[in-house]
Amino acid sequence: MRIDQIKKGLEERGLDAVVLRLAENVLLATGYYVQIGGLGLAVVPREGRPALIVPDYEGEEASVPGVEIRTFPAIRLDGPPAGPLIERHLSELIEAAGGTRGRVGYEGSFEAVAPPTLAGEPNAVALPTAALIRSASGGAEIVDFTASLEQIRSIKTDEDIERLTVVNEVAMIGLDAFKRHARPGVTEVGLAAEVEAAILRDGSGHRGARVVRGWATIASGPATASGWQYFRSGTRTIEPDDVVMIELGTVADGYWADHTRTVVAGTPTAQQRAAFDAARGSLAASFEAAVPDATGDAADTAAREFCRAAGFEQFPHHTGHGTGFRYHETRPAILPGSDAVIEAGMVIACEPGIYEEGLGGFRWEDNAVVTATGARPLATSDYGVD
Amino acid sequence: MRIDQIKKGLEERGLDAVVLRLAENVLLATGYYVQIGGLGLAVVPREGRPALIVPDYEGEEASVPGVEIRTFPAIRLDGPPAGPLIERHLSELIEAAGGTRGRVGYEGSFEAVAPPTLAGEPNAVALPTAALIRSASGGAEIVDFTASLEQIRSIKTDEDIERLTVVNEVAMIGLDAFKRHARPGVTEVGLAAEVEAAILRDGSGHRGARVVRGWATIASGPATASGWQYFRSGTRTIEPDDVVMIELGTVADGYWADHTRTVVAGTPTAQQRAAFDAARGSLAASFEAAVPDATGDAADTAAREFCRAAGFEQFPHHTGHGTGFRYHETRPAILPGSDAVIEAGMVIACEPGIYEEGLGGFRWEDNAVVTATGARPLATSDYGVD
Repeated sequence: MRIDQIKKGLEERGLDAVVLRLAENVLLATGYYVQIGGLGLAVVPREGRPALIVPDYEGEEASVPGVEIRTFPAIRLDGPPAGPLIERHLSELIEAAGGTRGRVGYEGSFEAVAPPTLAGEPNAVALPTAALIRSASGGAEIVDFTASLEQIRSIKTDEDIERLTVVNEVAMIGLDAFKRHARPGVTEVGLAAEVEAAILRDGSGHRGARVVRGWATIASGPATASGWQYFRSGTRTIEPDDVVMIELGTVADGYWADHTRTVVAGTPTAQQRAAFDAARGSLAASFEAAVPDATGDAADTAAREFCRAAGFEQFPHHTGHGTGFRYHETRPAILPGSDAVIEAGMVIACEPGIYEEGLGGFRWEDNAVVTATGARPLATSDYGVD
Repeated sequence: MRIDQIKKGLEERGLDAVVLRLAENVLLATGYYVQIGGLGLAVVPREGRPALIVPDYEGEEASVPGVEIRTFPAIRLDGPPAGPLIERHLSELIEAAGGTRGRVGYEGSFEAVAPPTLAGEPNAVALPTAALIRSASGGAEIVDFTASLEQIRSIKTDEDIERLTVVNEVAMIGLDAFKRHARPGVTEVGLAAEVEAAILRDGSGHRGARVVRGWATIASGPATASGWQYFRSGTRTIEPDDVVMIELGTVADGYWADHTRTVVAGTPTAQQRAAFDAARGSLAASFEAAVPDATGDAADTAAREFCRAAGFEQFPHHTGHGTGFRYHETRPAILPGSDAVIEAGMVIACEPGIYEEGLGGFRWEDNAVVTATGARPLATSDYGVD
């Protein structure tokens, strides 16, 4: 189905084929999450079978129904060099697609790319890949296919939803660890370490997940009042009755989740409890408003109005965004004035927050799939502010 | 000094200025490690003062002697939009550098980029940044400055060496945790979690380090014989006398380290002990051969010859590579046939390994700075194979 959508995009743009090199888009097109980004390429022709080019040690694992697998030696230097082999594969596949001296698409405008999941660099697509495709196609016109890919990615398939549910469940393991360990005497980095360890140790293997990782960031105490910024964990020790906020990114096999929780490490004041409830209520309101054909502005407005009715002001950062093939997808933008149209099957992350000096910051974020009756959270935690 | 090197590069290439957007190159030019890659840009003119453009909430922290700071509102939506403000800053800075209708450099060919350190996407430089610079300069010619940057990065300053020593020391915290926890009954992912937690919890704040993170990957048992591949941690439980290998990436404030250790969770055989000794001896031999003016081939050959003399064959993956501003820097390549010239001040990671069915895989990797008498490790661990 994905392949058909991509083929339709190629048709619309008058392209013979698209060459995909970002791990996230190879996953999109083939369902296979390559080990080393950049060393796995997919070619989708306008007609015929897509192909996946991977290192030979990944050949067996990469077997995907309906996808031609081609391999090349990587890392080991006792065979032919990888570069020319990759180019030959590309050349043959592009020629078979009729792309030589035609038009070939590529990922020209991806400047935010999914993080890597192993200790290696993420790969980007810049001049060298454009030159490689140009060379492999014997001079085809290279066309930026980014907008089409972003559009195709924004609507998730049933298989995507299933895999995003898995990563959301894994995230809950981390968020439960956060709740357990957010206690006076723990440092912010110590708390982050507990959360990430729980995800890696207990989330790996969850419903078959093979590559699992969490990125936790903790803010605590008065600093949470500026928690709308992109904060980092510090060595501060959590004190009794501190507000503690976590921003958590989680990945399982190339599918991403984006969460926030806020708790009080002790007893919240009545006003803090009210702020917490308002943030959670705003989140629910944004999900309820995220029905097919609603605009991003409508879902944003629903969150802000709930907040205001509860006596608080939601901070003017966005209410939410698409998520899935990385933390932040470009569609739909859920913020004031956004005319992005929300569609069934989109997965969104909403994160309304209230930040006040003296009170602290309260934000809560879940990921949800858009259905006819609103956005349904893919997983939830069952704890409160204290 | 960095700035002078970059200015010299601009002179050589006939450029008026270079615009840097990758967090790793902004760090290179200004010493400042931005929080959100892509939201911090540096402009280095051929003459005059460099500038750093960052979100307003980072303005104070980003204060760097000799660097002009400019800010724009980010994340919050209650001010003017960030995009046009960034472009206006760029436009003014490029004009002041004489770059309008001249030639402006950019990072056109960075396809391996440093991972992110927070739960957000790493940024890449592709068509949108090229278009932004073109627009901000009113039509200057945009020139790929990547090769010059890679060259400049390859020789570390005293300040770089100091900061790389810090991250290597932090890595040792993780490698010591690896040694302590590599015991029968622990899963690979459980062991990786212990290592990463130790780095985050105990490495944060080490000699002032603010952003610290580790990426550990564990292989164990017979699978280590194919440990030359880019393996991933699994849910396998370590058994008595298993070979256990860790590949560890560590970052502290934008400086990276790359390590490998191998131990036996019990009692090694005589042959395993010999393989371990051969791998460590090969590493030492490659460091000894890494003197100024030696080639990458010479350092590689030294490792292989040591290994052969010890009765083993070093696997035909590279012996090593430059490191520092990300795990893998392009210079110098330490592999068979490499004519890359090793220079004083380069920081290299060498990682010879022996992999045999029945024996397992044995690899050891440290990072070292090239001096007149060979490469000196930036930090070491003091444990052996058992």
